[in-house]
Amino acid sequence: MYKIVFMRHGESTWNLENRFTGWTDVDLTEKGIKEAKAAGRVLKEAGFTFDVAYTSVLKRAIRTLWLALDEMDMMYLPIINDWRLNERHYGALQGLDKGETAAKFGDEQVLVWRRSYDTPPPPLAADDERTSFNDPRYASLSKEQIPLTECLKDTVARVMPAWDEEIAPAIRAGKNILISAHGNSLRAIIKMLDNISDADIVGLNIPNGQPLVYELDADLKPIKSYYLGDQEAIAAAVAAVASQGKAK
Amino acid sequence: MYKIVFMRHGESTWNLENRFTGWTDVDLTEKGIKEAKAAGRVLKEAGFTFDVAYTSVLKRAIRTLWLALDEMDMMYLPIINDWRLNERHYGALQGLDKGETAAKFGDEQVLVWRRSYDTPPPPLAADDERTSFNDPRYASLSKEQIPLTECLKDTVARVMPAWDEEIAPAIRAGKNILISAHGNSLRAIIKMLDNISDADIVGLNIPNGQPLVYELDADLKPIKSYYLGDQEAIAAAVAAVASQGKAK
Repeated sequence: MYKIVFMRHGESTWNLENRFTGWTDVDLTEKGIKEAKAAGRVLKEAGFTFDVAYTSVLKRAIRTLWLALDEMDMMYLPIINDWRLNERHYGALQGLDKGETAAKFGDEQVLVWRRSYDTPPPPLAADDERTSFNDPRYASLSKEQIPLTECLKDTVARVMPAWDEEIAPAIRAGKNILISAHGNSLRAIIKMLDNISDADIVGLNIPNGQPLVYELDADLKPIKSYYLGDQEAIAAAVAAVASQGKAK
Repeated sequence: MYKIVFMRHGESTWNLENRFTGWTDVDLTEKGIKEAKAAGRVLKEAGFTFDVAYTSVLKRAIRTLWLALDEMDMMYLPIINDWRLNERHYGALQGLDKGETAAKFGDEQVLVWRRSYDTPPPPLAADDERTSFNDPRYASLSKEQIPLTECLKDTVARVMPAWDEEIAPAIRAGKNILISAHGNSLRAIIKMLDNISDADIVGLNIPNGQPLVYELDADLKPIKSYYLGDQEAIAAAVAAVASQGKAK
């Protein structure tokens, strides 16, 4: 039997401001820093040890991982930064306040863009300064690999090769793995693991900074999954995620 | 022409307490944290960018790297943790106050242990709780690979395969590299690069937290080398390192 632990990053500045973030490299808030440290403490107290950690190339996930590893006194852990674990790209919505966007396009359209499986938001123009084309962290990628927008289906298509080629083989090799990533890159993995339908996956809410454990059988099928830590706080955090993106 | 940048970690708690540290996993002091951040700022202001960073598995070097990368807004940089970049193992002196050790054994003997190229301090007993045998970060090593003491010659013998097998090929592949390590693992590399004699290398003092740039030719021979930043502060830091380990 195998175990793998997922963590969504702690609260980011744009979570707090209710802005669409996507590939924008915003940092954690003070609350997010506390969440990340708390996640590390919970993992330590539960006796988890790891052989390798995976994260995205976005600092809110990296810092969450660093803070958690520091709390676990495991700063020496090998870390693999994989752009394919990045958050879903939010296209032309990136940087917009979610409430403003909702007021402009209507709650319904925003909810479609946020939660439809296969309807992407409008893409960034190729010459938009918000594109990632000139960002050195993506220098090894072709222009075609760098998205201008993504629906969740697109994110799944990008994340799954990272699972199939990197993470799953490492699990089978007996490595204990910690993944620090984003709401939608984690949805992609959980959709596959739990065989969740296209319609249902958009309703799955993953709270910030709560370690989520999956116990897997020899075929990497889930035996059970559970959040570590204070279950009431987790339920409240799940509800808070669900209410994001509504006009206010 | 190639460039590589070395950084010795910022001041550690045991630097401050004047204790022999070696493989003991002590953290940075507040001053060390400031030094690490300052190193990142200096590198950023000088326009350095990197493709990959190497560090040891000891938190004072890792944290120095993390803090510098954070200042450079390059947290996404791939980091390779290599135990072979660890500080020299100080054997039975690890944890002892340098002044006390000097008072007990005499300035001269301590200076021999610190600065002789091939005289190691007394080894730790195999059942000493200070050994690294049960530390998970060394779980992949054989018992023979985990030192109980080292002279600088031993450290050189351990560090050089990391250079030859990992770092030098990466430089030749055109990677811009940042190495965050320790006084003696950096001495090992600099000894080889500058072809410094066994007698002279022990007199080379590397200050904490000052980026040291080597420009290398196509054969990885140094063209020139220099510290970035405030040259007066660097000279003072070099002098401070030289005075460590004297009885007081």
